[in-house]
Amino acid sequence: MRAEPGRSVTSKVLALLDAFSPATPALTLSELARRTRLPLPTVHRRTAELVEWGALERGDDGRYRIGLRLWEVASLAPRGLGLREVALPVMEDLYEVTHENVQLAVRQDLELVFIERIAGRHAVPVLTRVGGRFALHATGVGLVLLAHAPAEVQEQVLAAPLERYTELTITDPGRLRRCLADVRRAGYAVSDRQVTMDALSVAAPIRVPEGVVAAISLVVAHDQADPVALAPLVRAAGRVVSRALMDPPPGTRRM
Amino acid sequence: MRAEPGRSVTSKVLALLDAFSPATPALTLSELARRTRLPLPTVHRRTAELVEWGALERGDDGRYRIGLRLWEVASLAPRGLGLREVALPVMEDLYEVTHENVQLAVRQDLELVFIERIAGRHAVPVLTRVGGRFALHATGVGLVLLAHAPAEVQEQVLAAPLERYTELTITDPGRLRRCLADVRRAGYAVSDRQVTMDALSVAAPIRVPEGVVAAISLVVAHDQADPVALAPLVRAAGRVVSRALMDPPPGTRRM
Repeated sequence: MRAEPGRSVTSKVLALLDAFSPATPALTLSELARRTRLPLPTVHRRTAELVEWGALERGDDGRYRIGLRLWEVASLAPRGLGLREVALPVMEDLYEVTHENVQLAVRQDLELVFIERIAGRHAVPVLTRVGGRFALHATGVGLVLLAHAPAEVQEQVLAAPLERYTELTITDPGRLRRCLADVRRAGYAVSDRQVTMDALSVAAPIRVPEGVVAAISLVVAHDQADPVALAPLVRAAGRVVSRALMDPPPGTRRM
Repeated sequence: MRAEPGRSVTSKVLALLDAFSPATPALTLSELARRTRLPLPTVHRRTAELVEWGALERGDDGRYRIGLRLWEVASLAPRGLGLREVALPVMEDLYEVTHENVQLAVRQDLELVFIERIAGRHAVPVLTRVGGRFALHATGVGLVLLAHAPAEVQEQVLAAPLERYTELTITDPGRLRRCLADVRRAGYAVSDRQVTMDALSVAAPIRVPEGVVAAISLVVAHDQADPVALAPLVRAAGRVVSRALMDPPPGTRRM
C-alpha cells in the first residue's frame, strides 16, 4: 500500500513534527533531514506540504518553526487547553490568595506534562515550561499522578532508575512505594526540596468518576512553607476543578 | 510517487486533524470519513497511526479527540505558547490592577487567533476562546492587528463583506480605513460596543523591529469604561511585552 518502503508517509510527517523540541524550536531543512534520518528530497516535499497547511512556518532566517495552525488544532485537545480552560479560574484564585507558583499537570505515559503554570513574579523560580515534561517521582504533581496511575505504570516507574535531582529526591523504589501509599491516604502530596533545594510543592488530585486525570499544585520557597497550612487550599482547588470537569459549562469538554 | 491517487498522504493526515473544531472536538471514524471525504479504510489506517503517535486519542466512547502529544509539539509554536510565555506576566499585572479581561491575539491570514485570555470572574463576559478565531475589523486587538497588517491584507479585508455584530460595528470600508489610520496615529485602538453591546475594549500593539506581531487588550463593561484612562495602561503593557520579545530571557524564543 505504501509508495515509499519502510516507513509510512504518516510516520514521516509525524517524524518531522517530532524533530522540534524546546532545545531545537527552529530547524533548517538539512537539520530536519539529519534528525528524521529522511532523505533531503522527502523532507523538502513533506515540509512544503506542512508549511502550506500551516503546521510549520518558515522564518526570514530560512528556519522552520511549529506553525500557529497546528497550535490552533492542538488547542482542541481535551487534556490540554480543554482542561486548562476549566482549571484556570481556580488557579487564578489560588494565585491571588498566595502569589506563589500554581501548576497544573497531567500524566502522559511514564512522565508528566505541564498544562498550565501561573508564575509568581516574586515567587521561587521554577523549572517548568507549559508543554514541557518532567519525571513523575519528584514533583508534587508527579507524586499525585503516579500515586493514582494504573498499577502497571507504577511498576514500570519503580523498576526504572529514579533520577536524583537533589539529595532529598526519593530514588529508592521501596521508599517511593510507601510515599505513594501516603499520598493516596492523605489526599495530597508534598515534595520538599526533591526537585530543587529551594522549593517545596503541595499537590492535590483532580478526579472524574473514571479516576485521577490531572494534578494541581502550589510551589513555594521551602523555608517559608507550611505544607499543613497549604494542603487544604490546594485540595479545595482540586475539588473545585474536579466538579467543574464533571459538570462542564457550555462549550467546554469533558476529559 | 503517491500510492493513493489525487490527494497526497500528507494532505489526508492533515485533513483528519482539520476535521476537529470547537463545535466538533470528538468524532467517530465514520464522522471523520464524512468530514474528510476519505474512504473509511483510509481513515481507519491513518487514524490508527495518529493514535499510535499521540496526535489523536481514542476515548472510552469510541470517539477520537486531539491528543496531548500534538499539544506538546504545538506548544513549541513561537506565535502560540512562545509569545504567551513572554506576555503572561505582563497580562497578570494588568489583571491584578484592573480585574478585567485581558486578551492577547495574533493575526493569521485574514483573521485573528486568541493566544491567551485572563478572564475576570466578575468582569464582563467575553466570547473569546484561547485558540479560537475572530474577524479583524471588530475587536480592539483585531483593529490593531489590521491597522498594522501589510497593505494587501488590509485591502482583502476591506474588499470583503464586513460582518455586523452590533449596530456599532464598522461595516463601511471607507469608515474602517479612516479608523485604521486613527489607530496607527493614536498607538491604540478602541472598540466600543462593536462586538457586543455591553463591552468596550482598548488594545495596543506588540512590536519587534520587523513590525507588529501581536496585540494586547483590556475588555471592560462599556458603561464603566474610560478608554482615555485605560489606554496608557494597555500601551505600557504592549511596550513591556515588545521589549521582552526583543530581549528574550533564556529558554524563550524570538517571534
